Amino acid sequence: MTDIIIHEAGLRDGLQMEAATVPTERKLLWLRALMNSGVDVIQVGSFVHPSKVPQMADTDRLFADLAASGPKPAGVTLSALVLNEKGLERGLACGVEMFCMGVSASETHSMKNTGMSVAEATGRIIATALRARSLGARVQVSVQSAFGCGYEGEVPQERVLAIVRRYCEAGLRDVSLADTAGHAVPDRVERMFHEVRAIDGEMTLACHFHNTYGLALANAYAAVKSGVVSFESSVAGLGGCPFTKIAGGNVCTEDLVHMFQAMGSRRDVDLEGILGVARDMAYYFGRELPGMVHRTGTLMQAGA
Amino acid sequence: MTDIIIHEAGLRDGLQMEAATVPTERKLLWLRALMNSGVDVIQVGSFVHPSKVPQMADTDRLFADLAASGPKPAGVTLSALVLNEKGLERGLACGVEMFCMGVSASETHSMKNTGMSVAEATGRIIATALRARSLGARVQVSVQSAFGCGYEGEVPQERVLAIVRRYCEAGLRDVSLADTAGHAVPDRVERMFHEVRAIDGEMTLACHFHNTYGLALANAYAAVKSGVVSFESSVAGLGGCPFTKIAGGNVCTEDLVHMFQAMGSRRDVDLEGILGVARDMAYYFGRELPGMVHRTGTLMQAGA
Repeated sequence: MTDIIIHEAGLRDGLQMEAATVPTERKLLWLRALMNSGVDVIQVGSFVHPSKVPQMADTDRLFADLAASGPKPAGVTLSALVLNEKGLERGLACGVEMFCMGVSASETHSMKNTGMSVAEATGRIIATALRARSLGARVQVSVQSAFGCGYEGEVPQERVLAIVRRYCEAGLRDVSLADTAGHAVPDRVERMFHEVRAIDGEMTLACHFHNTYGLALANAYAAVKSGVVSFESSVAGLGGCPFTKIAGGNVCTEDLVHMFQAMGSRRDVDLEGILGVARDMAYYFGRELPGMVHRTGTLMQAGA
Repeated sequence: MTDIIIHEAGLRDGLQMEAATVPTERKLLWLRALMNSGVDVIQVGSFVHPSKVPQMADTDRLFADLAASGPKPAGVTLSALVLNEKGLERGLACGVEMFCMGVSASETHSMKNTGMSVAEATGRIIATALRARSLGARVQVSVQSAFGCGYEGEVPQERVLAIVRRYCEAGLRDVSLADTAGHAVPDRVERMFHEVRAIDGEMTLACHFHNTYGLALANAYAAVKSGVVSFESSVAGLGGCPFTKIAGGNVCTEDLVHMFQAMGSRRDVDLEGILGVARDMAYYFGRELPGMVHRTGTLMQAGA
């Protein structure tokens, strides 16, 4: 199996879906525990206008507090989502190491999300990405609704590939395909990444699955078999997408890491540390959260 | 993709885990709806002593009532689980078309379940299976705890293969591997079925996954890629195993059929009919049941 990168996105893609804003201090507790667990990339928040997503209003402060509290564990990269140039400036000002940004492959989703067509949004994101990179930051560009759209239904594969081609032509080769509405099925995942790799074999491929229909781990398995190396996930399976009709949770980090560990990979990650965060989140929110393993315990504990 | 057989086992492997016995009339409603949905095989119950599993005490009556109510939909086979010769006699008396029987690959599980060693239990099951077949019934033989055991933890692959070899030598080629404790992971599923097929290429392979750790659909995808054709599942994801420490639900029939349909297979099955049964079960039991799709609706409804 390829070396797998775990990109924890729950503090952004999970918490933005919660009705109540989580206090900064609580976020910092969770972030520090996740940083110590050995996951590779942690998405701290997003630089979106606070009136639009108030849950993310403290993203600048989170970066500042984490930087002020001393050196982070070796190998951990802190990422953030940006939607535009303005967000990029905020992110650069507080020391974001890796910027995530993207466009939707669905015209309806793109218009609702950004007010721009897919083609226009792609041009804007490429310009923003190139600027971030020229200033020394890592950049990952994504295609949202890559496997289907909550508004439009099917999204033709060719539309996704056209965006990936534009990214590659601009020299942007860290590419993520996001299954925003949870429509991906494993055979489609394999076909899609096969075609994406045919565009440029030098890309670092990432995926971001939602578990709307229970298929997230099956899709992740199909992805890892198709050469995808980076997996975006959300601790406790928090989250969804505010811009689609069905809000299914993100693939659950600890269930994903558990699958990889049970297959012999990434046993360096402290799964118990992630499970501790998941259980604390369930306690904090006062409800059962979607992940399985924080309730059942691990296969490794069962002696497997 | 190979032609897929759906073997609905919820009325047996699901209901045997419920504290309260479901009235026969309710079971008949569910069975008739499932028979009309176009799934291929329906496990009606098991012929186990009523004092041990009282939930299955009406299995004989269910077969009799179904037979009395006229011809069943074309293509539907009614199966039952038997544990021994005595159960077989009961099953033969009420017209079971397909007998399911098996042994555990775990010595501890085998002793707890049957009071016999694996070797002894295998001999007894083969004798029972051959008798059933000689009387004209279809027979499927299984290996339980094939991917790990709730008591012993890891179960060496060779122990599973040794049982499959004995089945094949006896001419029993309808073979199911059951992940009784939910320990299967997709890469192991692929390796296991690769080795099983190497024993005898003429087998009809079945699998029975549990979703304890959320991996059931990933395992099912790995299985279908490995030449497995028959999938045992449980409507609404009911069930588990009374003989293991962790009782994870069976892979959910409607989520499984949904995955196959979203990949273009088995679109002849009336998924809405199965969803109706799942929702009625959730209503009947008065609690949320594990399946996803009976809550979210289908990808096909979402236009995918």
